Order: sequence, then structure tokens, then C-alpha cells
Amino acid sequence: MRAVCDPMEFTEEILEQIDTEIETLGPAKIPNPMRIPAQCFVPDDYRVTLRVNYRHLREELSQGRELPSLELAGPRPYIYFDPSKTRAGIVTCGGLCPGINDVIRSIVMTLYYSYGVTKIIGFQYGLQGFIPKYRHPVVELNPEVVKDIHTMGGTFLGTSRGHQDIEEIVDTLERHNIHILFMIGGDGTFRAATKIKEEITKRGLKIAVVAIPKTIDNDIWLVSKTFGFDTAVELACEAIRCAHTEARAVPYGIGLVKLMGRHSGFIAAAATLATKEVNFCLVPEIDFDLEGPRGFLSALEKRLLERKHAVIVAAEGAGQKYVLKDPPEYDASGNIKLGDIGRFLKEKIENYFKERNIEVVIRYIDPSYIIRSVPANVEDRIYCGFLGQYAVHAGMAGKTGLMISYLNDQFVHIPLKEAVKKRKQINPQSRFWLSVLESTGQGDFKNSP
Amino acid sequence: MRAVCDPMEFTEEILEQIDTEIETLGPAKIPNPMRIPAQCFVPDDYRVTLRVNYRHLREELSQGRELPSLELAGPRPYIYFDPSKTRAGIVTCGGLCPGINDVIRSIVMTLYYSYGVTKIIGFQYGLQGFIPKYRHPVVELNPEVVKDIHTMGGTFLGTSRGHQDIEEIVDTLERHNIHILFMIGGDGTFRAATKIKEEITKRGLKIAVVAIPKTIDNDIWLVSKTFGFDTAVELACEAIRCAHTEARAVPYGIGLVKLMGRHSGFIAAAATLATKEVNFCLVPEIDFDLEGPRGFLSALEKRLLERKHAVIVAAEGAGQKYVLKDPPEYDASGNIKLGDIGRFLKEKIENYFKERNIEVVIRYIDPSYIIRSVPANVEDRIYCGFLGQYAVHAGMAGKTGLMISYLNDQFVHIPLKEAVKKRKQINPQSRFWLSVLESTGQGDFKNSP
Amino acid sequence: MRAVCDPMEFTEEILEQIDTEIETLGPAKIPNPMRIPAQCFVPDDYRVTLRVNYRHLREELSQGRELPSLELAGPRPYIYFDPSKTRAGIVTCGGLCPGINDVIRSIVMTLYYSYGVTKIIGFQYGLQGFIPKYRHPVVELNPEVVKDIHTMGGTFLGTSRGHQDIEEIVDTLERHNIHILFMIGGDGTFRAATKIKEEITKRGLKIAVVAIPKTIDNDIWLVSKTFGFDTAVELACEAIRCAHTEARAVPYGIGLVKLMGRHSGFIAAAATLATKEVNFCLVPEIDFDLEGPRGFLSALEKRLLERKHAVIVAAEGAGQKYVLKDPPEYDASGNIKLGDIGRFLKEKIENYFKERNIEVVIRYIDPSYIIRSVPANVEDRIYCGFLGQYAVHAGMAGKTGLMISYLNDQFVHIPLKEAVKKRKQINPQSRFWLSVLESTGQGDFKNSP
Amino acid sequence: MRAVCDPMEFTEEILEQIDTEIETLGPAKIPNPMRIPAQCFVPDDYRVTLRVNYRHLREELSQGRELPSLELAGPRPYIYFDPSKTRAGIVTCGGLCPGINDVIRSIVMTLYYSYGVTKIIGFQYGLQGFIPKYRHPVVELNPEVVKDIHTMGGTFLGTSRGHQDIEEIVDTLERHNIHILFMIGGDGTFRAATKIKEEITKRGLKIAVVAIPKTIDNDIWLVSKTFGFDTAVELACEAIRCAHTEARAVPYGIGLVKLMGRHSGFIAAAATLATKEVNFCLVPEIDFDLEGPRGFLSALEKRLLERKHAVIVAAEGAGQKYVLKDPPEYDASGNIKLGDIGRFLKEKIENYFKERNIEVVIRYIDPSYIIRSVPANVEDRIYCGFLGQYAVHAGMAGKTGLMISYLNDQFVHIPLKEAVKKRKQINPQSRFWLSVLESTGQGDFKNSP
Repeated sequence: MRAVCDPMEFTEEILEQIDTEIETLGPAKIPNPMRIPAQCFVPDDYRVTLRVNYRHLREELSQGRELPSLELAGPRPYIYFDPSKTRAGIVTCGGLCPGINDVIRSIVMTLYYSYGVTKIIGFQYGLQGFIPKYRHPVVELNPEVVKDIHTMGGTFLGTSRGHQDIEEIVDTLERHNIHILFMIGGDGTFRAATKIKEEITKRGLKIAVVAIPKTIDNDIWLVSKTFGFDTAVELACEAIRCAHTEARAVPYGIGLVKLMGRHSGFIAAAATLATKEVNFCLVPEIDFDLEGPRGFLSALEKRLLERKHAVIVAAEGAGQKYVLKDPPEYDASGNIKLGDIGRFLKEKIENYFKERNIEVVIRYIDPSYIIRSVPANVEDRIYCGFLGQYAVHAGMAGKTGLMISYLNDQFVHIPLKEAVKKRKQINPQSRFWLSVLESTGQGDFKNSP
Repeated sequence: MRAVCDPMEFTEEILEQIDTEIETLGPAKIPNPMRIPAQCFVPDDYRVTLRVNYRHLREELSQGRELPSLELAGPRPYIYFDPSKTRAGIVTCGGLCPGINDVIRSIVMTLYYSYGVTKIIGFQYGLQGFIPKYRHPVVELNPEVVKDIHTMGGTFLGTSRGHQDIEEIVDTLERHNIHILFMIGGDGTFRAATKIKEEITKRGLKIAVVAIPKTIDNDIWLVSKTFGFDTAVELACEAIRCAHTEARAVPYGIGLVKLMGRHSGFIAAAATLATKEVNFCLVPEIDFDLEGPRGFLSALEKRLLERKHAVIVAAEGAGQKYVLKDPPEYDASGNIKLGDIGRFLKEKIENYFKERNIEVVIRYIDPSYIIRSVPANVEDRIYCGFLGQYAVHAGMAGKTGLMISYLNDQFVHIPLKEAVKKRKQINPQSRFWLSVLESTGQGDFKNSP
Repeated sequence: MRAVCDPMEFTEEILEQIDTEIETLGPAKIPNPMRIPAQCFVPDDYRVTLRVNYRHLREELSQGRELPSLELAGPRPYIYFDPSKTRAGIVTCGGLCPGINDVIRSIVMTLYYSYGVTKIIGFQYGLQGFIPKYRHPVVELNPEVVKDIHTMGGTFLGTSRGHQDIEEIVDTLERHNIHILFMIGGDGTFRAATKIKEEITKRGLKIAVVAIPKTIDNDIWLVSKTFGFDTAVELACEAIRCAHTEARAVPYGIGLVKLMGRHSGFIAAAATLATKEVNFCLVPEIDFDLEGPRGFLSALEKRLLERKHAVIVAAEGAGQKYVLKDPPEYDASGNIKLGDIGRFLKEKIENYFKERNIEVVIRYIDPSYIIRSVPANVEDRIYCGFLGQYAVHAGMAGKTGLMISYLNDQFVHIPLKEAVKKRKQINPQSRFWLSVLESTGQGDFKNSP
Repeated sequence: MRAVCDPMEFTEEILEQIDTEIETLGPAKIPNPMRIPAQCFVPDDYRVTLRVNYRHLREELSQGRELPSLELAGPRPYIYFDPSKTRAGIVTCGGLCPGINDVIRSIVMTLYYSYGVTKIIGFQYGLQGFIPKYRHPVVELNPEVVKDIHTMGGTFLGTSRGHQDIEEIVDTLERHNIHILFMIGGDGTFRAATKIKEEITKRGLKIAVVAIPKTIDNDIWLVSKTFGFDTAVELACEAIRCAHTEARAVPYGIGLVKLMGRHSGFIAAAATLATKEVNFCLVPEIDFDLEGPRGFLSALEKRLLERKHAVIVAAEGAGQKYVLKDPPEYDASGNIKLGDIGRFLKEKIENYFKERNIEVVIRYIDPSYIIRSVPANVEDRIYCGFLGQYAVHAGMAGKTGLMISYLNDQFVHIPLKEAVKKRKQINPQSRFWLSVLESTGQGDFKNSP
């Protein structure tokens, strides 16, 4: 739903800045074996625009200028790989996210039943699965093996963080004679996928690399909503409800919830909209002052004195100016190690009110691992099913170096190199964020505008 | 999410058939009191196209032809009604659907806090609430009254079915001095709303009528997804899971679930996609033969002999050619009374296997009232919040005779008279339905093509 | 919890009427291989009384009279079967109930890890699994096979209803060389188990038969609470909440829920206590008049006129005097086929109010199959774990013809022949039922006392 | 359910050590106004024994010795207070626990409907509510006010920790003319209640003090199971499942969950039994060594190398010998401030494996505030309903200085002074704890026995 997922309001203008052409391994000449009506196949030149301002559109086109457009995802009338000889591999990388197993299951089912591809292997524990020294055996995948995995959270294949040697990875692909590699991961994975694709090209191999975007933060550029996000928001709402109950139970009770969101506060904002119980929502996209007459602490004090309780939700990436180490540290995947804004706020609030002799009770909740490891909800389950199908259609058609994106209400192909250029963030002037402000009643927490 | 909600794939071509102009009561001259950045207001001439085939678009516009477009919903820079004098009314009609209370709450909160409208009343028990003889008192609505109603299912205002006298309704609007009437309901309500609007015009009154589409079947024309649908699918999935468990527990077990869907099988189809446990999905849009070598019963027998159990999901409107009374009967709202396909199938299946001496065990589940009366899930909760906001923005701007629609990933204004012209149904050649077929493995159940 | 499960208030007096001696196959001479402290073993002569009236107790004992007592369940210091040679069989019979898979899992785990018994087979589809003509193969059971089955509802082994030839069953036990047969089922199963035990004795075999009581109705004599009951009540409460929402949503709305409970209304009564939203609770134990000035319909009318809505819960066995066929019919298991009190009440209510020109709206919900097929909740999961353990301890000690009972807060051994003598029912003068009356405010619906 | 709640196995021997006499304000002479059958009233001399070893019982009684017994809870035939003049007060103290609102609701409903007591007030925010300087106004309570509060977690009346002046409290009781004070709280509250009762006696007032035991840790002496415990275990299980998913998702993944349980590890142990996914369960009752060849870390290493993942559950009071401050600190209620065993273990484990060059990934989950603030589940809801009723029956009969206990499957009266003498803890040789050991497969983590 755009309401939740697309506060970026991706518009035609954004497309003008990106290269929308999708690479292929070569011409697709084999008739697609799927038994569906002819008109259900999607030709490559069926391209779509984004949701657009009609005036802009008319001006551009009536003056003969071309507008950028995207390749629609879907089964192609002709495919590149001969299903009877195709070997596919699947790998899942990075952090957990509800729905990964649904995507794995859908890829396997579509390869097997729609295309007749029966040789499918899973590489275990992320990119480590390609590196001999870790000794993680590959897993044979087929409908019997995957048929119930969507009932479990996590990833059936295991995952890991961190870089691995690209040449070793491609060596392994060659050794296993893989034709299509499906990579489920976030921007770090996309960067690895791009390098793998380049190494494949360098070696003159015919291996397609197809990515399915996974990020519980919903922060991948050019994707309206990533899978697992809805489920995550549901769980986040339960934590907020608990914080609210705790806050109301005592005089001057404060419920403080830290939610996922390293660079983008979508989960915090959506959960705020859904619960309607949050008084302060702090996200990485919006700077705030802690101290000072118009700062956050002062606003919190006002709220507490008026209503005797308050609920604060902070995305983990909020207020990093206060807590980031100098110089910053990085984790195995090369992501910056964020400072702990939750515990920082807890301490600051405690001290602030201690100085003012107001006895507050703070309940601090950090539900992150509980949120990301549950099975997908129904909405995400259906979504993941489609993502897996479209990834297979793209791979069988010989397309490579792309991700499957759900963008403005349609599934499209996006070049990986474009997806990693930016990060999707909340637009502070979108209806989405304005609705958050209306729901909390919070101001801007800035002493000077 | 389109994946679930929009197997219609609304395209530009559809817009060409509709009148997209929105009526207004008069020019909006009062500056909007909302404290949001200027660029966040949406001018009336900001119009959007639907998701479009780029080639088609280019051809049309480059040849100087105009393309149809829709008015984007949102707060207008100028409004028609003076908030300090505005009186608003809310009514909920027809069957229950998760999220009604969220919409009521959002309308009240937005009127009160964003516009400063404090005189808001609720008419109780649907259109009966306007008719003196029923003696249903009106309810004063304000933030304190509605603040927790979203935690309950059903409708805080009550509802009813059936026609009421239009003149009496407008008399009551006059008597209560209502300026904006918000009507939450389905196509029957839309027809009443249209007549109310006409009577208002006839009397020269300045009362805006704004509708919010409500249908658990998700079958309203020109709406991608109606609120409550996601929640309904979640509950439907639980019933299917139980049917699956029951079916597997005994030799030749059959789980048969009847789901809502009078004319459109969206709930049945989406739940089939989500659970992955359904073997036969019957919807109103797709005709099927019961008997005969390629008919449904024969396919069911084959499945049972092979796998010892089967799960069948039937939308209530499926197979009406077998069960509809002749001549048909109608309920208070003028809807045709459907035959009971669930019990019919149960009986037919029992007889079919009795004749063949196969001892089957059928578990028949009809979860309808359990599905429609739960509180909205998080996704629907956020969605309903936006619907209520946009309805208020439209009403305050003096727009009338329209519904708020979420269409191809954007909130737009649609004239009510267009919304009632057709019903949204599953497109049998959409990826959505094809995915259902892939998931069930079912054929077409037709003896002759 | 007794609050829910034991409105019978089993007391010492009840014990006086039963034979509490447990049969054994012979002396247990093999030291128990479990590595637990010596004092954790339970000797056979450790017997317990029920919860007792102290005065009664003192009188009896001080006058030298013996009081009856029960054999406490638990691991014996010595066992009868040599684990290395023992072969165990498991079968599940009758209707579904949450927790069956937990019991199966616990039996397998305890046999395997606590005693070292590795030869365990499951007979499929109830008693059919012993009869060659059905051709249901047996299933090898071990920790790997059962480790996740508790996450699913239903029964991993399948079930069926109906009698089977006892001699054929014992033939099969001999053919498979079974030493202990674990039977999970209700009173029908207990009767079969008793006959199987007798046939075993007749043939001079050394096979122990141990039953675990399963009945979602919680109606087995001499068991405080049967497994799955708590889970069932939870689900029943959800259905009632929906009925309540539906009833309140319309003028003169009536929510009518039929719940399981053929002869005992425990589910209906417990759900009434838990939801606090039921106005009329009808159970098999309490007779009621439908018509007449003090009858049910008259009370319903009074409630409706006062409060505009009503919620009715009826156990399926309530009011059978109105709906039972004459002569009665029986199902495959020999149980009487109950008349459909739900649809009968619906029709009667409709007619009653039609005659009085009161337009009521009835929402009828029958959630039975949804209730019994879900996985067990946490409480039942722990309970089932213990039942399985105690069954294994009894079987390994060579005890036979008994059921494991949870009675007045302790696990004990009860001879099967005693368990089938009566049915547990609600005591109309217990605090439990009085609390139901206080919660609903209902009267006795009797025209003459 | 004893399985969960009563690993203490309260036996007759325990009763011998306690004074079981209940104090009263004076003779109860007013006929009980409840309209229930005469035989449903419970006379004071109806006393019950605990679950007992029959041999012991027989020996004692046959030799003429008296055995201790308890007063059964329930409505008395005669009451002390005249309902039309009675004023009752309710207060909730200490930490949150699921079900508090159910108890409040039940007290109010029973006072109002069963006895006709209409003057009921709630003191807000625990004992602070009696102290004028905090200015917390009292709340009028009646059926309309409390009818829906059970759908919310937390406490409708608010709570607080810490001592307050006993004389001021009794002053307030006098000022409000309270006759019965219901106190919902734990052992700290019991101590305050005892002092309040003594001050009442000293002043010659006729005010009854009735306590309802509340402790999420389930550690109150002489209570089989406290309310909210079942609900807490359910939530704890969800956290463990997430930890399990996280642990399995990565190579050498460790899920570490800290659960409530300051002195008694019931929640940790019960959740271990229910999930069957825990490999190490650490509770306050069982000492363990961290280092050394048979210590915890060594066992963890073994498990990790064998199975690549592990799940650890630690009650917050476990291993305090490692983390308690010296000298210890105390909170406002006088409870010792426990050291943070969760973070301590996390750090120790990290260091241990870093030294051994094994790259582990630890996911640490502390779900405490999420567990204690949810609404009660169905089981607890019914239980709380009874607790509230029995408290009212005791209070109206003029009994004082007691708590309502659910002990060995019956509701009884226990003198408060006995309840505070000890704490209930897991018996390491009970079947309950042995089952935990069997489920985890863990040893004793002791280098020397």
C-alpha cells in the first residue's frame, strides 16, 4: 500500500535520473513452456511509466521529448535458458526479515512447476556458502523440501554478513555449473551482486544474477515497499501498545521504544500512524535538538506535566549526531555502527527530570529481534510469492544485474547499479510524514528554524 | 498492495470511459487553516494518470490527443466551508467490515484538529438514523468519544440495510443543519448518496456528500483495494488452515470453506495465494461444470485418490447457475439473494462419492461473520486513517457526489456516478488469477472449452 | 486450572464408588534406566486422596475406616519391560482436539530419551490403522520425525471414527510385536481399549494398553481437565466476541454461537465466563423451556427491548428435547446424532419476533471446526507434555487398562473401566455454574420450577 | 494447572508449619443477600486439606492427631457488613501483570450485583493514592466504568512502588469511610497490608483488609499459581521462538533471552517446557558454574560445535553470585536491585568464544515489558474473575488480614502473615524441573558436586 510504503512518492522525475535498461545474457529464443494464454506473456518492449503529474507528461510528450519508462516484470514469450539443462542457485544474505522463506519457496516452486527446472541448490549462510573454507554444504532444493518452510520465520538457508572474495564466489558458481543465481538481500548484497555479475562477464560466462530486495527498514531506492515491512510494523505496534500501557500505569510514566530504521524511519512512522498512541516519533530523516526551550526534552516535560504519561518511538538511526562515535566504526558488512540512541535518550531523560525533581518512570523496550524473526503475515506472504515468480521469469529470460522491484503498484525490472545509488527515505513534506505529525501533535524540536 | 488488490490492473484505457470531473458546491475561497508547508497543499488542477503503457501514452499525446486524468486527493489551499460554522455528519451503512471505526475516528480527528470543526454528529444504524420513526438518537462525536473506538470491530455508529426515503433524509440533514455528510458504505450506499445529492441540489442547499467505499468483497469499481480486505484475507487464511488440518486428519478428508465474495472472488483468491494449501478455488468470475469427465467432481475424485485429502475454497457467489432461485429473491438493500453454494457443494460431493463407494469425510466451514467483525489489522488501520483524512479534505473544499478512492497507488477523487456503473472483478488473464491457478494446480473444470 | 476445568469438584466421596486398583502385566523387576535422583521415583504404594472435606476425613479415619486413594503417576523405580527389546505403538482415535501432536511427540521423546526405546510405530487413521483391508501403512516414529509436529494442529497420525474388529486389532499388535500400545482417544476409544486388553489377556499376551484421555468437550469422568480444552475455550471466545460485535452493530441484533459440548457444556460455560459478553448460555446439563412467560424466548425479548442486542451461546447438546430425532440415529462411533439446536433456535427466534413485528437480525456462528484444529496453546502444550511422559512411565512399568488422569491437581492412574462408567458434567450448584449465571444475569427459563 | 504452577507440590506437611486461622472483625450476622441455593453457601467450618500422601494421613488421624486444614473460600451464609451502608476501596500496587483489570472488574461487579454495594472507590497509583501530597484523586467505580477495562493491559487504577506512611493511609481510609479495602499486590504489598490491618486494629476501626496475590514471577508462598502467569509464559514463548529463529539463521548463532523471575524461575522453566527449543535454562534456584570443564560455557561450546546454534533462557535472578553489587542496592519497594545477568552472560560468552577464535553471533532479547503489559489470556481471565469474587465474599463476611489463594486446586483463605514468611521456588527434584532438564538435555554445570 502506498499509504505505508511510498512516502517517497516516486514520480516520473525520478526516472529521468536513472538508466532503466536491463542487461541480458543474449537473445531469448526458446518458447516459454508455461501453459498460460498467449496474451499473458509480457514482451520486453512493454514499458510503463510511474505515477505521473499529467500536465508534466503532456508537455514533455507533446513537444516530442521521450519520457523514461521501466521494463514491466513478467513471464516472457521467449526465454534464454533451456529449462531441462538449467541449474539454479539461491542465496540469502544480511539480516533477517519476515518472508525470506516465502521468497525461497516461490522461486523453487516457479522454477520447478512453471518451467520444469529441477536442479536447484541453496548456498548456506549467505556469501559464506560460496567459500570453501567455511565448509557449509549446499542444499538440494525441490518442492518437497520447501513446501512448508514459509510457516517458519528466519531463513531456511541461513545467512551471514560481510564481504567474501568475488573470484571465489564465481569459482563456486562455475564448479556447481549454476546458470541463474538468485540473491535475496539488501544494498550490500546488491553491491556484491554487481561485482559478481562483472566477474561473470569478465570470464565470458553465461550466468544470470537476479536480486530480490530485502530490507526490513524499507529503505531501498526505487522500491515502493520491501517485503516483510508490513509484518514488521505489526510487531512494532504491539511493542508500542505495551509501552503505552506501561507509561499510563504509573505517575509520569514514559514508554520509550527503539525500532529498526538505520537511515530511514519508515517502521517508526508507520507504527506511529497505526497505533495512534505515540506522542513523539524520532526518525533519522528529521534532525532535532535535545536541549533548549524548543528542544525535545522541553516538549516532553510539557507533555508529562499535562497528561502524566508519554510514549516515545525512536528509529535506531535517529539523533545520531548525539551518539555516533568519532571516528565511526563499521560492522562486517561495512555498515556504520550506529550509536545507541535508545539508551542515550533514556539516560538523558532520566537526568533531565532528576534535575527538575520530577520522578519519572521510564520503560525502555527494544523489540528488534522479536520483530524481524517472525513468519510473514498474509499480505507479505502474497507479496513474496509474486517476487519469487517475477525473479524466475527474469532469470529464465536471461536478464541479469537487475532487481525485481514493486514500484508504484507494478512489478518492474531495475538495474542493480541504479538501486544502490541512493537510499529511500521519508520525505518530510509528504502526506505520510505530515500525518505522523498530526497523529503525534509533535513540533519540530528545533530551537532555531 | 496491488499484488493482492488490483488484479484488475486498472489502466489508462479504463479512464477513457469515465467522467472524471468532480462537482463542487461553489468556489473555495477560505484559506485552509492547516499548518503545513505551502507546497503540501494540492491544487485542484494537479491531476494524475493511471499506471500506463508507455507506448500508448506517447502515441496519444504526441498526436495532440488529450488523455484522461484524475483529480488527486489532498488538502486544498482554499476551502469552501468556514470551519467555525461547519457542522458535519457521519453515517455507516451496509454490512460490517474491519476498519469502519478507524475511518470514523480519522474523520472526527481530522475535522477537529486539522480544521477546527467541532460540531460533528453521528447518525445511528445507517440510513435508519435519518428517519424519525426509528427514534435512533444522533450521537455527538469528538476526539474524546472516538479516541479508542478503533480497538473494537464493527461500527461504533451501528448500521442497517435497506432503502429509506430520500426526502426524509434531506429533511433531517436540514433539521440538523449539516454541511458535510460523510457516508461509509458500498454501492447501495453510493446510489443513495447520489440521490441525496440530487435532492440537495434540487432544494438549493449547500451540503457536500462525500463517500468512503466500504466492501469486504473488494469489488467496487475504480478502487484498487477497499479497506478491511487485508484483514478479511488474514482471517480467511486461518479458516483455510483449519480446513486443511481437518482434511488431512482423516482418510479421504475434504475441507470445504465458503468465503465472502458475492460477485467477485478476491478474498477466496487472495487467501488461496497466501495459504498455498488450497486445491480448488471457485470464484464467481469463472464458470465451472460440476459433472462430466472434466468437471469439478471428477477432478476432486482424482485428487482424493492420489493424495487422500483435498481443500476447496468457494466464494459465496461461485456456481450460482446451480443454486440461484428462479425467479431470484432480493434482500432489504435490493441485493439478489444468492443460493448457498457451500451446502450445495457439500451435498453434491457427498452423493458423488457415496455412489462410487468412497467414504469421504467433509468438514464444511463458513467463517463469514468471524471474518468481518474483527478490528482492522495494522495495514488496514493506516489505510483507513488516510481515507478519513482525504474525505475531510474533499468535504471542506466543498466537493460533493464523490468517493475517495485508492487507485493505482494514489488517493484520488472519483465521481460517485462512475463508481456505481460497474463492479470490479477478477480478470481471468491477470497474473493474479494465473498465480492462483499455479498455486492450486486446478484446471478449468469445463467439459467443452 | 480447577476454576475452568473442575466444576464437578471431584471429592473423596466420588472415590468411594470406584475401583482404584491398577492392573499390571506382572512384577516390575528391571531397574528404571532414567538418570534422576532416587527420591524422584514414585513407588506404587504412594497413593493420594482427592481434595477433601477435612471433617469427613477425620471422622472416617479416626474410626478405623479406610478411605479410597489413587495411585500417583510417575516414573517407577523398577519397570516391567526391557527397553532394549520394547516395541511401542501409538494410535489416535475420534475427533480432532488441540494438542494431540504434543502428546504423540512427548510419548516418542520420553520412550526414546528417558528409556532408550527406539522401536516405535504409529498406526494411521485410528483403529483403521490395525485393519489390513484399509491398507494404511504404519509410520516409524523417532525424535527426528516428531520434533516439529507440535507446531501443527490435527493429528500427525490421522484419525477415524467407528468400531473395528478387536481380534484383527490384536492380530496386528502381535504381527508387529508391540509391547505397549498408547491410545489417545475418548470414551469410545476407552471401550475399545478395554476390549483389546481383554483379548490380550485371553491370548495370554504381555501387551500393555495405556490410554490418554482426549475430548474437546472436557467430559471424561474422573479427569479434572482434558488437554485441548483451554485452547478450545480461547477460540470459542473469539467467536463470541465476533457475535457480540455483530449483535451490537444493528438494531435488535442477535449473535447466536453454537459451541461444542454434546453432553457437557464446559466450553460454552467457560467461554461465557471469560468473555463476559454472553447474555444467555444454554448447556445440555440444564433443561430450559423455549415458550411460555418464563421461557427463553420471552427472556430474550425482554433483553432485546431493553438493550437492543443480545448474545446467545448454545452448546450443541443443549435443548435436545426439542430437536432429537425419534427414534434417535447414531454415527459410526455409536454416538447419538444430535439435533441441530443452533439452526433450530435461529428459526424459532426468527418466527417469534416476526409474529411480534420486531425486526431482529440474527448472526449465527458455528465455529466448531475452526476451534478443534488449531495447534495447542502454551498451557495445553505443557500439559500434553506431561501426559505423554506419565503414559510412558505407566506403560514401561507394565501397567495396563488404565488412563492417565489429571485429577485435583495431580497426575494419577485410573482404571479404564471406571472412566467409562459416567460422563463428567457441570454441577448446576457449583461456584462455576453460579458464576456463569452471575455473568449472564440469566434466569432458569422454566415456567414451572 | 499444577503441571505449570505447582512444581512446589504443596503437601500436607507444609500446612503443619502455618497458622491457618483467619481473623474476623466480628460475628457475621446479616443473611447473605445473594440469590443462590442454600447449599451453595460455604460455612466457615468447611475446611479442606491439601493434596496428601494417603499413608501419612491415615497414620496421623488414626492415632488421634489433628491435621491442619484450610478455610475454603466462598460466599458465607451470613455476612458482617450491611451492603447498603458498605463502602469499598480498591488499590493496585507494584509491577504490572496481565489480569489486574480483570480482578478490579470482578470485585466491582460482585460487590455491585451480588451484594448491592454501590459505593466503591479506586485509589490511584498504588499506595501513593492514599497520601494527600501526591494529589491523586480517587476514582468512583461502578459497572459502567469497569465493564470494558479487562480488554486493556496494565491497571486501570495505576500503580507505584515504594513505602508510604501507614498512619496516613489509615487516615485516608477513615476520611473516605472505607469498610473493606481490596489490595492487589505482591509480598511488599502484603507487608503493608499487614501493617495497615494492625493500625486499623489499634484505632479500633472495623475495616477489613483483603489481599489478592499478584506476582508475575509466580513466587508467592502458599499460592499454586498466581494470575497473569499463564499469559506471561505465552509471551515468553514467543520471545524464545524468535531467539531460536535468530540462532538458527547464522553459523554459531546464539539466542539469549532474559525472562522475569527474580527469585523463582517459573516463567523461564515453563516456557522451556512449552517451546521445547531451549538448550540451557538458568534459574535462581539452581546454582551453576560459568567457567571450568563442567561449567556452563564449556557446555555451550560443546553444543555449538555439535549443532551450530543454541538457545539460552535465563531468569533475571539466575547467577546473581556473579553480578550482584557488593554491598547490594535496593529499589523504592525495598527489593534488592539484581545485577544484569543477561548482559553479563552476553559479554562472558562473547569473550569466551573470541578467545577460542570461534565467531559466534549472539542475539540478546529482553522482552520483560512486552510480557507484563498485555491483557490476560482466557485462562487468566477466568481465574481473575474467581479471585475477585472470592475476595468480595471474604470481605463482606468481615474477614481481614488474609489473601485469597488458589492452592492445590481450590480457593482458600490464607493469613497474610503466613504468606510473607517464605517465597515459593522451584523444587529441583520435582517432576516439573526434571522435565525441564529432560527437555533441554542440560547437565548441572557444576565442576564439583
